Amino acid sequence: MAAAELTAHQLIAQHRPTLDQALETIRTRAYWSPHPEHPKAYGEDGSLGMAEGKAAFDALLGSRLDLGQPGTDDWVGGEVSPYGIELGVTYPHADIDVLLPAMKAGQRAWRDAGAETRAVVCLEILKRISDRTHEFAHAVMHTSGQAFMMAFQAGGPHAQDRGLEAVAYAYVEQVRTPDTAEWTKPQGKREPLALNKQFTPVPRGIALLIGCNTFPTWNGYPGLFASLATGNPVLVKPHPRAVLPLALTVQVARQVLAEAGFDPNLVALAAERPGEGIAKTLATRPEIRIIDYTGSTAFGDWLEANARQAQVYTEKAGVNTVIVESTDNYKGMLSNLAFSLSLYSGQMCTTPQNLLIPRDGIRTEDGPKSYDEVVADLAKSVGDLLGDDARANALLGAIVNPDVKARLEAASGLGEVALASREIRNPEFPDAVVRTPVIVKLDGAKPDAEAAYMSECFGPVSFAVAVDSADEAVELLRRTIRDKGAMTVGAYTTSQEVEQAVQEACLEECAQLSLNLTGGVYVNQTAAFSDFHGSGGNPAANAALCDGAFVANRFRLVEVRREA
Amino acid sequence: MAAAELTAHQLIAQHRPTLDQALETIRTRAYWSPHPEHPKAYGEDGSLGMAEGKAAFDALLGSRLDLGQPGTDDWVGGEVSPYGIELGVTYPHADIDVLLPAMKAGQRAWRDAGAETRAVVCLEILKRISDRTHEFAHAVMHTSGQAFMMAFQAGGPHAQDRGLEAVAYAYVEQVRTPDTAEWTKPQGKREPLALNKQFTPVPRGIALLIGCNTFPTWNGYPGLFASLATGNPVLVKPHPRAVLPLALTVQVARQVLAEAGFDPNLVALAAERPGEGIAKTLATRPEIRIIDYTGSTAFGDWLEANARQAQVYTEKAGVNTVIVESTDNYKGMLSNLAFSLSLYSGQMCTTPQNLLIPRDGIRTEDGPKSYDEVVADLAKSVGDLLGDDARANALLGAIVNPDVKARLEAASGLGEVALASREIRNPEFPDAVVRTPVIVKLDGAKPDAEAAYMSECFGPVSFAVAVDSADEAVELLRRTIRDKGAMTVGAYTTSQEVEQAVQEACLEECAQLSLNLTGGVYVNQTAAFSDFHGSGGNPAANAALCDGAFVANRFRLVEVRREA
Repeated sequence: MAAAELTAHQLIAQHRPTLDQALETIRTRAYWSPHPEHPKAYGEDGSLGMAEGKAAFDALLGSRLDLGQPGTDDWVGGEVSPYGIELGVTYPHADIDVLLPAMKAGQRAWRDAGAETRAVVCLEILKRISDRTHEFAHAVMHTSGQAFMMAFQAGGPHAQDRGLEAVAYAYVEQVRTPDTAEWTKPQGKREPLALNKQFTPVPRGIALLIGCNTFPTWNGYPGLFASLATGNPVLVKPHPRAVLPLALTVQVARQVLAEAGFDPNLVALAAERPGEGIAKTLATRPEIRIIDYTGSTAFGDWLEANARQAQVYTEKAGVNTVIVESTDNYKGMLSNLAFSLSLYSGQMCTTPQNLLIPRDGIRTEDGPKSYDEVVADLAKSVGDLLGDDARANALLGAIVNPDVKARLEAASGLGEVALASREIRNPEFPDAVVRTPVIVKLDGAKPDAEAAYMSECFGPVSFAVAVDSADEAVELLRRTIRDKGAMTVGAYTTSQEVEQAVQEACLEECAQLSLNLTGGVYVNQTAAFSDFHGSGGNPAANAALCDGAFVANRFRLVEVRREA
Repeated sequence: MAAAELTAHQLIAQHRPTLDQALETIRTRAYWSPHPEHPKAYGEDGSLGMAEGKAAFDALLGSRLDLGQPGTDDWVGGEVSPYGIELGVTYPHADIDVLLPAMKAGQRAWRDAGAETRAVVCLEILKRISDRTHEFAHAVMHTSGQAFMMAFQAGGPHAQDRGLEAVAYAYVEQVRTPDTAEWTKPQGKREPLALNKQFTPVPRGIALLIGCNTFPTWNGYPGLFASLATGNPVLVKPHPRAVLPLALTVQVARQVLAEAGFDPNLVALAAERPGEGIAKTLATRPEIRIIDYTGSTAFGDWLEANARQAQVYTEKAGVNTVIVESTDNYKGMLSNLAFSLSLYSGQMCTTPQNLLIPRDGIRTEDGPKSYDEVVADLAKSVGDLLGDDARANALLGAIVNPDVKARLEAASGLGEVALASREIRNPEFPDAVVRTPVIVKLDGAKPDAEAAYMSECFGPVSFAVAVDSADEAVELLRRTIRDKGAMTVGAYTTSQEVEQAVQEACLEECAQLSLNLTGGVYVNQTAAFSDFHGSGGNPAANAALCDGAFVANRFRLVEVRREA
């Protein structure tokens, strides 16, 4: 271990107030974030400004990102931005029989550093990432296809918030038990029994983060930081189409670990050759004791069934429902829903898919609206929102991969098209595939329709499902959550009775509910420190971001006791 | 729901101070227990005294324990005490297709009662059990074969402590998130975004407790109370030879639930016909979402692999090691070890099995002792401890089943016998099978010896394994924990270096370590609120009693958010 440039003392002085504020906020669940959302907030105090961030990203293009990892036997890469440019960045390809043992070497010192030092080292990593938010924004944009502002916010401050939240949970979980205790048990007239006890949080072993294409940092940071903060080395296996944001994260983490006197190999990257499919191989290695995964249900289920040597945390796929029963703010409801369906071309695990609308129509403050009117008005609302190409590009981003495009194109064959998808030209990136959402009308009573709306159709596809009644909507909601899972549920109703029924369905089937959103908060967005992302209690995910269960089993407590 | 005889208000007034003290103690890990250990402490304030408890137990013999459960289709029983008497108690046999839905009926009201009310209802159940400790002591004695005093303490106050500890962990985990929050996010010059949020801990579903033969209450209460306190109905499936203590527990729980205005079917018993093996059937029912299990590795592994719809918490089997390297209190070490090997005829998951002793002998305050001397002195110490038949009976209890007796008898063929097992007559219960421990010498360097000491030999069998050095002992310790698991590790050494090496092995392999115990605390005993039982990080158990990980995933949090 080299002499540390950053001492624990310095890091604690610098970051402990932030940690304390995070600890306080996960208790109150009020609003808070130390990471500014506005691009113009960056550029001072050592952070990269807009132009510097862009320049830093441009400098990465075509480069070799040498992380200095042991066991590098090749250089691999091949990311092509959904906006059409080839990134040309190459990354170390690891001989895992060399890399994994090297990652274990620093585990003991990292364990012995204790929970607080680990927490502030993690906060330093997050601070350095935060300083490079503009650079990360381009990296997220050109791997996920998110529009710049979304890549900036969701890939930057919001992802950093989720990482910090995980560090806070990990820290508090580890310090619930004191480092030492004196235990004295009276024995009547005899001498009391007396023991000195030491309690040490010990890591499980190497954690594997399997990243996703659409939100490499936002979905990756919670698991990465939860594992690292609880003492585990972390091997980052990014999605082959979204390597850069996580590779930069690994780079920063390695730098900070080394500067703080720890082994940089505590965090490493496992990039792969095209088609190599190393996730399966890594996931079943005995050294891998924790896995965090975001992606398809099929591979998530495979991990849960096969990576039995590891604690497996999965976010898979679900079918998200919004019940539209009645509203006292029809316009607000339509514009809120239109935004939810459009944001990032519906390529969020939280985007509503099925809009359940009574076939007899709904009540509004402007009187009743028929099913057809509601669907037409929603279609118009989406159309208006995306009518201007510049705004459409800023909201939609690009279609992340050909599968999404294919599903979008097939969707119009599933029923009557209420809103056709429209191709939009991106003047800056002419090769980007940009599409507006399609809305398809389905009759909930028809069995052939069920095959469509009861499958996840990831991308800018929504179904306006006509149902017989509010009761039927709630029953279908229950069945959808139970059988398919749901990351989010929304409902619009002015009826106390329907609200209660929807709420009870969500409590019983375990799904997160947003009621009557008509303003600037959307069903598909959650805020760290306050909202839970997923519930961990329905098939869409076996964990929630972030709660005690997400961190408590990433370490164990070892007790050493001696007579006093 | 009938009018409650016990209001939440009354229960909170009565039990909140105890809950608060438990919450404080799991933070400090100092000594505390609200449950007296001494038999004479009972008999006032509504608790049964010694004679009353015995009379209550006698009255149970030959009776039908009608719990008033729905779906009872038969009456089953057949427990024979290890002390020779037939209990003759019959229990309801359930049609699980009737019982399971009935157990779900009260779940919503139990959920809506909230964490604090659930906690104090659990504390009232524990209080009623505590009042009947003398009766439970006989029930535990005559199912487990523990001697009376051990059955009284481990089956009574210590089990109640572990139950209370689980309630405390469950409570604090649920209230980490507030019931409601106001979230206001500034938007520069625009109106802030504002949401009201509600957070509700929701149960996973029916929990299944699969009880064990040797410690039906001590090993059963943590899971039972952790699940119940987090809102889940609990189905108790006792070991067929140890039904009575858990059936009485279910009876008390049902009474208290009903008096508090909840559905008594939230806790139910699943007794079985001989050879029916209902644990497998129950464990894979979709309604069962949590399983707590104590027992064989084979069935624990089966549960982990097959009960995929449930959260599975297992305590299986391990091979416990004590390293004997050096001591400054030779006599204290020998008497401490002798007690550990003798208590309950070694039928504890925490009893040491392998004593690793350098073949060149050890250092003591009386000068060096050869391997042969150490083994002979330990044999003498055990012999002296158990020389008096009355004391031997009080310490050993009875052999719990024929398998243990068979293993004991076979053990003398595994190597040179340093201490032969002796048959002891129990004057009160002449049919009881009472045996003193056997100590067998094995050479750690011989491959055929390894087959013996690397297998769990549950019962009064210990191996004095000669090893080349302290280093080899530590290496063998590591390998044993890693491959076979360990509930406990002990070590005797005056060498800082050896102590560090043993400690590091336990931290890395994740096992609980007791160092140089020479007084009245034994490696096989742990105290609730302070000691962790098992680590959850080696093959002996996937959970520890009790920590955050034991409770955090028994419920999930559902959020409902609305615009403010």
